[in-house]
Amino acid sequence: MVGIIVGSDTDLPNIRGTVEALQLFGIPYELEIASAHRLPDRVVEYARTAVARGLKVIVAGAGAAAHLPGVLAAHTPLPVIGVPMGGGALGGLDALLSMVQMPKGVPVATVALNGGFNGGILAAQIIGAGEPAVLEKVGAYKEALGRDVAAKSQRLQTLGIKGYLGADK
Amino acid sequence: MVGIIVGSDTDLPNIRGTVEALQLFGIPYELEIASAHRLPDRVVEYARTAVARGLKVIVAGAGAAAHLPGVLAAHTPLPVIGVPMGGGALGGLDALLSMVQMPKGVPVATVALNGGFNGGILAAQIIGAGEPAVLEKVGAYKEALGRDVAAKSQRLQTLGIKGYLGADK
Amino acid sequence: MVGIIVGSDTDLPNIRGTVEALQLFGIPYELEIASAHRLPDRVVEYARTAVARGLKVIVAGAGAAAHLPGVLAAHTPLPVIGVPMGGGALGGLDALLSMVQMPKGVPVATVALNGGFNGGILAAQIIGAGEPAVLEKVGAYKEALGRDVAAKSQRLQTLGIKGYLGADK
Amino acid sequence: MVGIIVGSDTDLPNIRGTVEALQLFGIPYELEIASAHRLPDRVVEYARTAVARGLKVIVAGAGAAAHLPGVLAAHTPLPVIGVPMGGGALGGLDALLSMVQMPKGVPVATVALNGGFNGGILAAQIIGAGEPAVLEKVGAYKEALGRDVAAKSQRLQTLGIKGYLGADK
Amino acid sequence: MVGIIVGSDTDLPNIRGTVEALQLFGIPYELEIASAHRLPDRVVEYARTAVARGLKVIVAGAGAAAHLPGVLAAHTPLPVIGVPMGGGALGGLDALLSMVQMPKGVPVATVALNGGFNGGILAAQIIGAGEPAVLEKVGAYKEALGRDVAAKSQRLQTLGIKGYLGADK
Amino acid sequence: MVGIIVGSDTDLPNIRGTVEALQLFGIPYELEIASAHRLPDRVVEYARTAVARGLKVIVAGAGAAAHLPGVLAAHTPLPVIGVPMGGGALGGLDALLSMVQMPKGVPVATVALNGGFNGGILAAQIIGAGEPAVLEKVGAYKEALGRDVAAKSQRLQTLGIKGYLGADK
Amino acid sequence: MVGIIVGSDTDLPNIRGTVEALQLFGIPYELEIASAHRLPDRVVEYARTAVARGLKVIVAGAGAAAHLPGVLAAHTPLPVIGVPMGGGALGGLDALLSMVQMPKGVPVATVALNGGFNGGILAAQIIGAGEPAVLEKVGAYKEALGRDVAAKSQRLQTLGIKGYLGADK
Amino acid sequence: MVGIIVGSDTDLPNIRGTVEALQLFGIPYELEIASAHRLPDRVVEYARTAVARGLKVIVAGAGAAAHLPGVLAAHTPLPVIGVPMGGGALGGLDALLSMVQMPKGVPVATVALNGGFNGGILAAQIIGAGEPAVLEKVGAYKEALGRDVAAKSQRLQTLGIKGYLGADK
Repeated sequence: MVGIIVGSDTDLPNIRGTVEALQLFGIPYELEIASAHRLPDRVVEYARTAVARGLKVIVAGAGAAAHLPGVLAAHTPLPVIGVPMGGGALGGLDALLSMVQMPKGVPVATVALNGGFNGGILAAQIIGAGEPAVLEKVGAYKEALGRDVAAKSQRLQTLGIKGYLGADK
Repeated sequence: MVGIIVGSDTDLPNIRGTVEALQLFGIPYELEIASAHRLPDRVVEYARTAVARGLKVIVAGAGAAAHLPGVLAAHTPLPVIGVPMGGGALGGLDALLSMVQMPKGVPVATVALNGGFNGGILAAQIIGAGEPAVLEKVGAYKEALGRDVAAKSQRLQTLGIKGYLGADK
Repeated sequence: MVGIIVGSDTDLPNIRGTVEALQLFGIPYELEIASAHRLPDRVVEYARTAVARGLKVIVAGAGAAAHLPGVLAAHTPLPVIGVPMGGGALGGLDALLSMVQMPKGVPVATVALNGGFNGGILAAQIIGAGEPAVLEKVGAYKEALGRDVAAKSQRLQTLGIKGYLGADK
Repeated sequence: MVGIIVGSDTDLPNIRGTVEALQLFGIPYELEIASAHRLPDRVVEYARTAVARGLKVIVAGAGAAAHLPGVLAAHTPLPVIGVPMGGGALGGLDALLSMVQMPKGVPVATVALNGGFNGGILAAQIIGAGEPAVLEKVGAYKEALGRDVAAKSQRLQTLGIKGYLGADK
Repeated sequence: MVGIIVGSDTDLPNIRGTVEALQLFGIPYELEIASAHRLPDRVVEYARTAVARGLKVIVAGAGAAAHLPGVLAAHTPLPVIGVPMGGGALGGLDALLSMVQMPKGVPVATVALNGGFNGGILAAQIIGAGEPAVLEKVGAYKEALGRDVAAKSQRLQTLGIKGYLGADK
Repeated sequence: MVGIIVGSDTDLPNIRGTVEALQLFGIPYELEIASAHRLPDRVVEYARTAVARGLKVIVAGAGAAAHLPGVLAAHTPLPVIGVPMGGGALGGLDALLSMVQMPKGVPVATVALNGGFNGGILAAQIIGAGEPAVLEKVGAYKEALGRDVAAKSQRLQTLGIKGYLGADK
Repeated sequence: MVGIIVGSDTDLPNIRGTVEALQLFGIPYELEIASAHRLPDRVVEYARTAVARGLKVIVAGAGAAAHLPGVLAAHTPLPVIGVPMGGGALGGLDALLSMVQMPKGVPVATVALNGGFNGGILAAQIIGAGEPAVLEKVGAYKEALGRDVAAKSQRLQTLGIKGYLGADK
Repeated sequence: MVGIIVGSDTDLPNIRGTVEALQLFGIPYELEIASAHRLPDRVVEYARTAVARGLKVIVAGAGAAAHLPGVLAAHTPLPVIGVPMGGGALGGLDALLSMVQMPKGVPVATVALNGGFNGGILAAQIIGAGEPAVLEKVGAYKEALGRDVAAKSQRLQTLGIKGYLGADK
C-alpha cells in the first residue's frame, strides 16, 4: 500500500498522475489532503501510524515552501517521495530546493517538478525492491515506453516532419 | 521573553547575534537546539507551549531545507522570525526560499541570510509594538547606528581613502 | 492600528489580501500609495510620524527594486513587514531579495511573493504579541484553517480524486 | 545488496558517506567507478545485470552534467538514487537539475547536494520497504539522531552559548 | 549527412528549424526520435553506427534532464550539437546546464535555448570546415542576414517608429 | 542628440518608451536597427562616427546574448546605455547579465529589464549633466511623477480599495 | 565634480577604483559614507543639495539590499551610477537586481558587480557628454587599453603560453 | 589550423587545456589575446581574415560579459567555439549565458564553464568531420578515457574506498 498525501487540493491535478502510475501496476493506495502548516497534527499522526497502517512508501506533493515530505520523513522510517509542484512566482524552484535539500539522516526522495506520475513509478520501484513481481511489471512498463517512442519515430519516417506536425496540429 | 531555537549547533555562531541584539535592549530569552527533522516532537511541543511559557515571539535559525520556523509557525499563534543560514552548496538560497515562501495563513517573518543579529532586532521591534519602552530603545539604537556611520564618514574625510584603508588593513 | 502602504496602485489587488486578513481580526488600518522613488518625501514623513499616529506595525508592498519597506524601516523604530510583488521579467526574485537582504540593524520582516494576505496575518500576530485577545483570534483562525483542509480531505475521501477534480472543473 | 557507483573518483570522498550509512544497518554493497560519458558500455552493462546480480537499489553519485543515475535508470527497473555533487562553477545546481528533472516514466530519486550519507539512508529505507528488520533499524537510527540533538541542546543549557561555542572552537 | 535526433516528439516543432537551416545549404539529413531514457538501446546503436552511416555531425534536441546529446557523445567520436528545449517549470535552465556542463573529454556543442535553427547553422559550419563550398554558402547566408536587418532599418527610417509598429500590428 | 539603436525590430515596442521619454524633454534623437551579430559592420561604423555625428549618448536595446551595447561601447568614448529586453526562455536574465557585466574600462550603463522608458530618462539626465536647462526639466518631470502618485493615493482615500479596484477593472 | 558615496566602509576597497578612474582624467570628486538605512537623513540631504554643490553625477556603491543609489535618485535630477558590491551569501545578485530594476521614471545607471573602476569611467563619460575635452581623454584612455592588450598578446607570441604563464606564476 | 583567442591573459591558465587537447591530435594552432571591448578592431580583423589564414575553427575563451566568441561569429563563416570562464561574482553564469544565447543565424558552440580542454576536443572533432584520420584519433582518445576510468575502478576494487582515498590524500 502506498500513501499519497498533498498539502493542498490545488496539487491534485498533478498528483492524479501518481494514482495513474500505481494503477498501472495494480498497487493499492490511499490518498488524502493534510497540510504541514495548516493541519500539522494530522500530518504527524499520519506519519507515525504509517507503518502500522501497512504503508510501504509515502508520496507527498507540495508547492512553495513545500515542507510536507520533510515533515513526514521526520516522523516515520518509511521512504518518503517528494513531488515538488511547479508554478508560482518562482516556477517551483522554491519547492524543489525545500524538498531535496534535507539534512543529514532524513532524506526525501525528490522527483521532477510536477512529477506526480514519476512519483508513482518510483513508489512502484521501491515496492518492487521487495516484491519481484512488481519489479517485473516495472521492467515491462519501461519496455513499453520504448516501444511507444519507437512507434512515434516510425511514424515520423513515414510522414516526414511536416506531415507529422501537421497531423498533430 | 523571546524564544530562540536553532536546527543545528552549526547555526549557533550566527544566532549569537540574536542574543547580542536582545541583550542591547535587556530583553530576556531562552535558547535551545531542536531540529524539525531529527527531534520533531520537541519542536512541536516547544511551539505548542510557547504562549503558556510566556514567549512573545520566536526566532528560529536553520539552513538548507530550513523547515524549522515553518513547522513552529504551524503549531503556535505567535509571530515566528526565520533566520536563513547562508553557505552550503547553494549559498543559502535554499534556506531563504524555504522560509519565506510559506503558504497562505501561516507566515514566517524572514530576515536576511545569516541575519541572526537582525532577527534579534526584529524580535525587539515586535515586543516593542506592545511595550513603548522597548520601542524607544529601538529608536535610540537606530540613531546610534547612524552616529556610527557618520563617525566613519568623518574619519574618511580626515584620513582620505588611502589613509582610511591603510589604517584598517 | 496597522499602516498599509504600497509603491504603486498595481500592487493593490494583492495588498487587498492584507486588508482582508486584518478585517478577520477587527484590526483597524490605514492605506495609502507612496512610492519610495517617485514620492519619497511622503514616505519619509509617513515613517517618521508613524509612532505618533498610533501605528504599531507597517505593511509595505512593492515590486521590482522594491525599496519601499527598507526606506520606511530606515525612518521608524516600528516593525516593517515587506510584501514582495511577484511577476515582472524575473518573477519577483528581484523584489524578494531587495526586501529581505537588509543590512545589520535595520530588518524588514519579509513574507512570501504576492503574500499580501500573509502580511496581514503577520501584522495581526505582531499586534497580538502585546494584545492577548488578538493572539487568541489568530489561534482560532489557524484552527479554522485546519478544519478547512480537513473538510477538503473528507470530501476527497467521499468523491475520489476523479469526482473531486470533476466537481471543481 | 546495494550498488554504489560514481562517475569519477573525485566523487569518492562524499560517497564514502553512502558506505558509512549502509554499514550502520549492516547492508552489503558493491562500489565501482564508471562514467556515463567515458566508460558508457560498462554503465549500460552494470544497469542491465543489476537485478540478476542481486541488487535491490542503486546509488549513483555524479557532478556537473551528472547523467549517470539517469542513464542507469534507463537500463534497469530498479530504483536509482541520485547524489548530485556540489561544487564547481555553479555550486552543483547543474548536477541537481540534471538528476531530478528526469522525463515521465524514468524517475531518479534525488537527494541533497553532496548528500552521499543520505543516499545510503534512503537506500536502507528502500530495502526496508521489503524487509521489516531493516526498517526497524532505520527507525532506531532516527531516534538516535534525535537523542544526539537533545544532548547538544542539554549541553547548550549547561554551558550557555559562549561556553558552548568556546568549547567547540 | 547530418543526423538529427530528438528525445520526444514535443521537440519537433523547434527542431524543424534545424531541418530548415540545413535545407538552406542543400545538406542532406536524417531525422528520428529516440529517447536516452525510454529507448536507450536505439540511442547507443545510433551513435555507434553514426560514422559508418556517413554522418559528419549530430544535432540532438532534448528538454528537462536532456541527457540525449551527452549520451550520444559518449558513444561516437563525431561532434554532437545540443539544442536545449526551453519551457517547462524552469524555463529550460535545466536542459541548458545538463547539456553544456559535460565532463572533460566529452564535449557537447551547445546552442541557445530553443535554438533548433542555429543547431542547423552550426552543423552546416562544421561540415563547411571540411567542404569550402558549404562554408561559402554559410558566408553568403550571413550576408543575407545583414541585408535583411538593413532593410528593416531602412523601412524604419521611412515609416518612423509609430508607422513601423502600426504596420506590423 | 541621442542615438537609439536596437538589435532587432522585435525590440521596438519597448524602445518606443525611449522615444517618448526623450520627447518629454524635447531632446532630438535618431533611431535605427543594426544587429551586433547580423549587421556588425554597421554597428562598428555607427559607434565610430557617433561623436562626429553630434551624438552625446547612445541608448541600445537588445535581448538574449545582447552584445549590442557592449560592442558599441568598444568603439566610442560616448556613454552607452543598455536596455536589456525581458522575455525569452530565461526571462531576460541572459540579456541583463550580458550587458551589465562589462570588463574593466568599458562600462555599459544598464537600466531595468524592458526599461526602454528609463533608458530615455537616463539619456536626458546625461545630457542634463552638461545642459542645466535639461536637468531642470528632469527635475520637473520627477516632481510630476510624485504628484501623479499623490493623486492616486488621494483617490484611494476617497474611493477605498474596493472602489478603487472596481473603478479600474 | 563627481559625488562618490558608499553605504558602508566595507565598500571602500572596491570604490577606490572609482577614485582612481576619476584621477586618470583629472576630474575632481568628493567621497563620503552614508547608509540609506542607517543614516538616511544625510542621504536625502546629500541628494537634495547635490546640484547646488556643483555635482554633475553621483556614483553610489552598496551591497546586499543596496538601496543607496535608488534612494539618491529619488531626491535628485542628476544621473546616479550604481556599483553593486559582489560577495555575500548570494554573490551580489541581490545588490545587482536591487539597483538595476528601478521603476519607471527613476533609473539608476548600473555597472558590473564590484565595478568601482567602471563607475568612475562612466562618470567621466557622462561629464564628457558636456565637456569635449573630457570625452577626448576617455577616447585616449580606451585606446591605451587596447595597446595594453596588444602588448600582452605580443608578449604571448614571444614567450609561448608556457613561458607566459611561467613568467606570471 | 585552429585559432585560439582569449579576451584577457587571466583566461590563459584554463585555455592552456585547449592547447593540450589539440597537441594530443597533432593539430596546429595559433594563439592570441584580443579583447572584444578593449581591442575590438583586432578582433574584427582576426575574424575577417580567419578563412584566408587557413583556420578551420576558432576557440574563444572569455569571462563575465564574454562577448568575444559572438563578435567573432559575426564576422566569419567559420564555426566558433565559446569557452565561458567560471569564477567572478556570479560563478560564470554571466559568461555562459552571454555565449550560448546567440541570436538566430549566428550560433556559438558553447562548452562547459572553464572547459578549455573540451574546447580543444570539440575543435578536433570539427576538423575530424572533414578529416577521417583526425576523427579516428578522437575515437582512440575516447577509448583511452574509458580505460583510465576502468583502471581507477579496478584500483578501487583492490584498495577499497578507505585505501583508495588514503592513497590519494
